[in-house]
Amino acid sequence: MPLLEKLKNYKDLAEFSEEDLKSLCSELREKIISVTLKNGGHLASSLGAVELTVALLRSFDPDFDKIIFDVGHQSYAYKILTDRKDTFATLRTRDGIAGFPRISESKYDFFTVGHSSTSISAAIGYAISRDIKKEKHEVVAVIGDGALLNGVSFEALNNIDSAKTKVIIVLNDNNMSISPRVGGFARHLAALSTSDFYVRFKKLVKQHCRSNENGQILADRLKNIKHRLKSLITPRMTNTFDEIGLSYWGPFDGHNISEMEEIFRLAKDYEGPLLLHFTTQKGRGLEIAEKNPSFFHGVSASTDLATVLQPKEDKSWSACVAKTFMSIAESDDRIVALTAAMKDSFKLNEFEKKYPRRFFDVGIAEEHMLTFAAGLSAAGMLPVVFIYSTFLQRAVDAVIHDIALQDLPALILIDRAGLVGEDGETHQGVFDVPLLLPIPNLVFATPRDSKDLEIMVRNWHDNPCPMVIRYPRATCPTEITSIFGKSERMLDRKAEILQSGEKCLLIGFGSTVEILLDAAREIKETLGITVTVLDLRYIKPLDLNLLKSELVKHELVITAEESSLCGGVGEKIARLIASNNLKTKIVSLGVGDAFVRHATRKEQWSEAGLTVSNIVALCKENLS
Amino acid sequence: MPLLEKLKNYKDLAEFSEEDLKSLCSELREKIISVTLKNGGHLASSLGAVELTVALLRSFDPDFDKIIFDVGHQSYAYKILTDRKDTFATLRTRDGIAGFPRISESKYDFFTVGHSSTSISAAIGYAISRDIKKEKHEVVAVIGDGALLNGVSFEALNNIDSAKTKVIIVLNDNNMSISPRVGGFARHLAALSTSDFYVRFKKLVKQHCRSNENGQILADRLKNIKHRLKSLITPRMTNTFDEIGLSYWGPFDGHNISEMEEIFRLAKDYEGPLLLHFTTQKGRGLEIAEKNPSFFHGVSASTDLATVLQPKEDKSWSACVAKTFMSIAESDDRIVALTAAMKDSFKLNEFEKKYPRRFFDVGIAEEHMLTFAAGLSAAGMLPVVFIYSTFLQRAVDAVIHDIALQDLPALILIDRAGLVGEDGETHQGVFDVPLLLPIPNLVFATPRDSKDLEIMVRNWHDNPCPMVIRYPRATCPTEITSIFGKSERMLDRKAEILQSGEKCLLIGFGSTVEILLDAAREIKETLGITVTVLDLRYIKPLDLNLLKSELVKHELVITAEESSLCGGVGEKIARLIASNNLKTKIVSLGVGDAFVRHATRKEQWSEAGLTVSNIVALCKENLS
Repeated sequence: MPLLEKLKNYKDLAEFSEEDLKSLCSELREKIISVTLKNGGHLASSLGAVELTVALLRSFDPDFDKIIFDVGHQSYAYKILTDRKDTFATLRTRDGIAGFPRISESKYDFFTVGHSSTSISAAIGYAISRDIKKEKHEVVAVIGDGALLNGVSFEALNNIDSAKTKVIIVLNDNNMSISPRVGGFARHLAALSTSDFYVRFKKLVKQHCRSNENGQILADRLKNIKHRLKSLITPRMTNTFDEIGLSYWGPFDGHNISEMEEIFRLAKDYEGPLLLHFTTQKGRGLEIAEKNPSFFHGVSASTDLATVLQPKEDKSWSACVAKTFMSIAESDDRIVALTAAMKDSFKLNEFEKKYPRRFFDVGIAEEHMLTFAAGLSAAGMLPVVFIYSTFLQRAVDAVIHDIALQDLPALILIDRAGLVGEDGETHQGVFDVPLLLPIPNLVFATPRDSKDLEIMVRNWHDNPCPMVIRYPRATCPTEITSIFGKSERMLDRKAEILQSGEKCLLIGFGSTVEILLDAAREIKETLGITVTVLDLRYIKPLDLNLLKSELVKHELVITAEESSLCGGVGEKIARLIASNNLKTKIVSLGVGDAFVRHATRKEQWSEAGLTVSNIVALCKENLS
Repeated sequence: MPLLEKLKNYKDLAEFSEEDLKSLCSELREKIISVTLKNGGHLASSLGAVELTVALLRSFDPDFDKIIFDVGHQSYAYKILTDRKDTFATLRTRDGIAGFPRISESKYDFFTVGHSSTSISAAIGYAISRDIKKEKHEVVAVIGDGALLNGVSFEALNNIDSAKTKVIIVLNDNNMSISPRVGGFARHLAALSTSDFYVRFKKLVKQHCRSNENGQILADRLKNIKHRLKSLITPRMTNTFDEIGLSYWGPFDGHNISEMEEIFRLAKDYEGPLLLHFTTQKGRGLEIAEKNPSFFHGVSASTDLATVLQPKEDKSWSACVAKTFMSIAESDDRIVALTAAMKDSFKLNEFEKKYPRRFFDVGIAEEHMLTFAAGLSAAGMLPVVFIYSTFLQRAVDAVIHDIALQDLPALILIDRAGLVGEDGETHQGVFDVPLLLPIPNLVFATPRDSKDLEIMVRNWHDNPCPMVIRYPRATCPTEITSIFGKSERMLDRKAEILQSGEKCLLIGFGSTVEILLDAAREIKETLGITVTVLDLRYIKPLDLNLLKSELVKHELVITAEESSLCGGVGEKIARLIASNNLKTKIVSLGVGDAFVRHATRKEQWSEAGLTVSNIVALCKENLS
């Protein structure tokens, strides 16, 4: 990679010829592809934004200007070109660079992200601050079309007019969000993309590009550009953006660096807030990703392109949940499925194909999705919502105010609950438990294996209520039973003793049950004690009778949860102990009071003390 | 009220003459005014929607059709006209009818609300359900202009196109949300309101109204209306709604019943989803409310119109917080204020007047507000956010992902934290504690009086961090000290012992401190024991050292929080006890695992066991 090696940082880009820029973009793609296939990460979006990033960094200077990436799926080229060229190979590894922009990682990352649609709000904040401090620099939000069509983005767009400040919104439109985008505004964007109203504008720009090399003369000529452009564009077409006080220019080719640079130069001269619409191709430069952009949105570590598309057995919780869902959905046409732009992740393609009128992809719109589910339920349907734990944070009020308060039957399937590994702190699913447990009327189930999952889903279907089921980003075990191999299963909403013992009571739920059983084996071997292992199965309501009767029998209880300790189940059990004045001592394992950075999930479990050796040590240390 | 008395329910409206309808509307207003001034409630919006409600109930039949009110501020006439005419006088009183629509109160209330902008999502749910079940009825969402301009509404509007279903959105546009509405879309709405593109449409309707009484002939004539209307409207103007696949008709006079009925009849014949834009006057029919619509958005119980506008001393927490805020804001121009359509409630008028460029009312857009605050903070400002506890539920992810994760200095002032009284279950501020405590980096302060509030605000200003301060819907005490009258104050982020004693440790924070001191006095008098009273002051981080050293000294600890017990501070203290194997018994008082219905705040405190007599009894019962 001769050019990349030569390049010290983005400032050198100014010296590059058009030919060199082309080669550099190829090198950037090569680097992004090789590192992402090895480490895992967000591939297709970053490939689509390579030229856009180069054009941005030749037009704006992040030593002064603020460039804010939305979501961060498209920020790899930016990371390489700012100050992380040499560390990029550590992408998403422990102590390496993060998969998303992080304000603490580089002075060129202006806003930490991971969730979508925050960039315009943040950009308005930066712009207002600039105005108050009387500074002079540009503030640029780079946002994808999927993220733009979200409620938070809308609220920010709506606020631009009153904020009376200049921000440049760069819309990187690859005609996708994560899955292909949906909705009326998406159609509007598509219409804008194919409209010919801007042909004259583009012609004008191109003419001027030809007539001068560096664009300076053009900029001079187009002084007072606001009025020139207005007269050129406004009378010919209105669109949503113009109507809300935000000038709209576009669409332009997001792979044509020189055209983009001209547009950026004009944008800098323009006085008001504006949205620049660029069309790009997701997966650009990697044929297999261009053809399967949704599939290549994110790839796992150690992806082999030769075999990645071959059908293979999927033993993940996601796949297992999809299968279980399908089995109840087939029997009852009140059951409908809802997802927020995550159809592929949740393996819902088969359901959609079979029941297109009962499948709803609402786009990146978690709040609407949950309230929509409440409406469906109020009208007699049985909505099933598929959502990641971290994104459910966006819709807490909809769960409280629309679902639980009305006590409406709905099943919320919370994927990626717990520690998620390489996606890091923005994506950890460690808050769903404390956020949801205080909500009245909600039933909270946590299956330890696929068998329990099926029992719980059927239990919901037989006794519809507002219910959530959480499960981790992991392989779904088929059968976790006691070490005695007891095979009959608990069918109601009760906790289950997997092994009866003495002195120490190990309490877990969901993903932590397996490690507690392993620890119990180890304790037996090393300390010679048969301890009790209890799977809560449901963390709301708690099986208080069983808990109380077990707690009094043991001098030590160790609770383990793949979730935040604060507001977690350990505290509830502690309250049971202290309010009943029991003598039992409690040790609670889980995620402490800090955001958990990217690493492997195993490393993160270890940081949280969720290891067999730690549990054995705690048992030894605390037993008399 | 001769007409209202005669009326059995909304079905009788069909028989009313135009003249009678006019009189009926006056009677409805009289009833709404008299009950609301007596009981308190949302006055101005309900007055504006009287004719609209009558027209809706003459055009749609809620025995079949579903009418979903957004927020519910405008639903009083609907309550009276459906089945709550005789119980309306019990509005907002314990066991009386609720101030908002409640699905469990009447078969005519189709969706419980209180928070804004859920109606379109819910309506899509009802409409999809109708389609799947092959039922035939209309689904109508009635939404104000403020609520429409919110992210959830936008996500729902965007989804209508893909959902391929018919909903009728009735936009009740009074050119206000709670405060006058703001933003680019608001300007767009205003432009639509004054545009003359619909004059022809209205003329057409009016002509036909004149030529036939019941509109049936008109409906027949306009069969295949979709194409007729399209050709009439579409080529003349585009607007945001049309662009997203939602037909837009309007604006029409929201006080002209016969015109509205014609429009509704046409809307029923129309095949696709559509938005009907009606302009109404907030406060209509009560001159003082027409002139002061924001002021009369909500009134307190026992409001006297003769004196209500007279300036009077405001001893509420809201007023006290505004004053304290002003005192630090004046000294530091990095400090900016943000509110979501609640300028009046937060008494920010003076600040806005003095520092217009440092004041931001973003409209009903809590999520954007918090992310905007994060952007401001990242750029070096010190944002102060004014929000109600219940509405902060909408922006939990912004606090986690945008503020706390980046450890950005910002002060979130949480008003109405705790039990709010008559507004009832949708508005209780009982979840902010469990929702926020698990968030790393956050400091959580809970002043007991105005003096502590000032100390805490200054402490934040001196040591900027992500911090929240919660305070109740109540009078702000000037000075709560120990019964010994100790007057020096704790300046750092520590807990404070207000009274040293023995045997029993009473722990409170914020609003519960006063009642604990009262209980301590009573315990002394009746049991002869001097107990310890501890004010936590900060509930995150907890003052663990002081807590531990005090816990061991007492055999009983009673914690009191005006908040949900689940995920609350009581659980944290229980964990401290049980993990340190202390002998102390804990009794935790607070809000149990159920939504708290409307009543007075005092009644709600009593339901939660937060009374002096209960605390004394618990002390007596649990001490050896």
